[in-house]
Amino acid sequence: MTDRSPLLHFDDLAVGDRHRSASVTISHDQITAFAAEFDPQPFHLDDDAARATLFGGLAASGWHTAALTMKLIVTSGMPFAGGYIGAGVQLDWPRPVRPGDTLHVESEVIELIPSKSKPDRGIVVVRNETKNERDEVVQVQTAKLVVPRRVAPG
Amino acid sequence: MTDRSPLLHFDDLAVGDRHRSASVTISHDQITAFAAEFDPQPFHLDDDAARATLFGGLAASGWHTAALTMKLIVTSGMPFAGGYIGAGVQLDWPRPVRPGDTLHVESEVIELIPSKSKPDRGIVVVRNETKNERDEVVQVQTAKLVVPRRVAPG
Repeated sequence: MTDRSPLLHFDDLAVGDRHRSASVTISHDQITAFAAEFDPQPFHLDDDAARATLFGGLAASGWHTAALTMKLIVTSGMPFAGGYIGAGVQLDWPRPVRPGDTLHVESEVIELIPSKSKPDRGIVVVRNETKNERDEVVQVQTAKLVVPRRVAPG
Repeated sequence: MTDRSPLLHFDDLAVGDRHRSASVTISHDQITAFAAEFDPQPFHLDDDAARATLFGGLAASGWHTAALTMKLIVTSGMPFAGGYIGAGVQLDWPRPVRPGDTLHVESEVIELIPSKSKPDRGIVVVRNETKNERDEVVQVQTAKLVVPRRVAPG
């Protein structure tokens, strides 16, 4: 675990709060190794085969991008109390991730929903944009997170 | 690549078409190794720490479940022509995945949307339910896929 603090509770957050993560570079070998294990399609495995596809060259699996995004969020994202527990996620991949790309995540709180049935927590909706070193968006992930309250109301 | 055939084009599909994948078992060591690389949170890394959390015991990262689901879909799912190219995905994890769980994917075509701007392809919306060996749903993934047509209309 990291020693980032203080941990953020539901009550500490406001719509519009923003955060930028650290960055990570994805290598050719990491792209093909992840694909071999989880997404063995030619455009994620082989340069020559990838050139003939919609991608026009080797591209990371979207699930690899999603997993690396999670790593950045967990290790250098908004430090939510209780960790990152997703109750639903929407994912889009507007642009391919290429070997050597350096990715970071820009996060914004877009909605805060107190739980009616469970007064000790709330749902925080966060939009996480994963961008490459040219600030092009390669993934948009909108997540509903379960975040504890400091003190249950009422 | 597999030798499954014939490949399915947009024109071959109907709403309600269903398919069941092969299955895969997830081990304790696979859960903690994936988490160490991509989702280093205590409930995915350590049995003792996990017991004190919302999960009540070690659980796979949702991103691990998503990646394994992709592996099942790519290697034994509906054989779409052109591969699995996602244009947007919705994910939910209604139940945790535990060490030793054996997962398979049940897929259903829920919508077919011809492309107006690109007559050589269409969007196929598929609902993929990942289930454990007790037929409990551990992940629901709804994906918009780009699938080529056999012959462009008109």
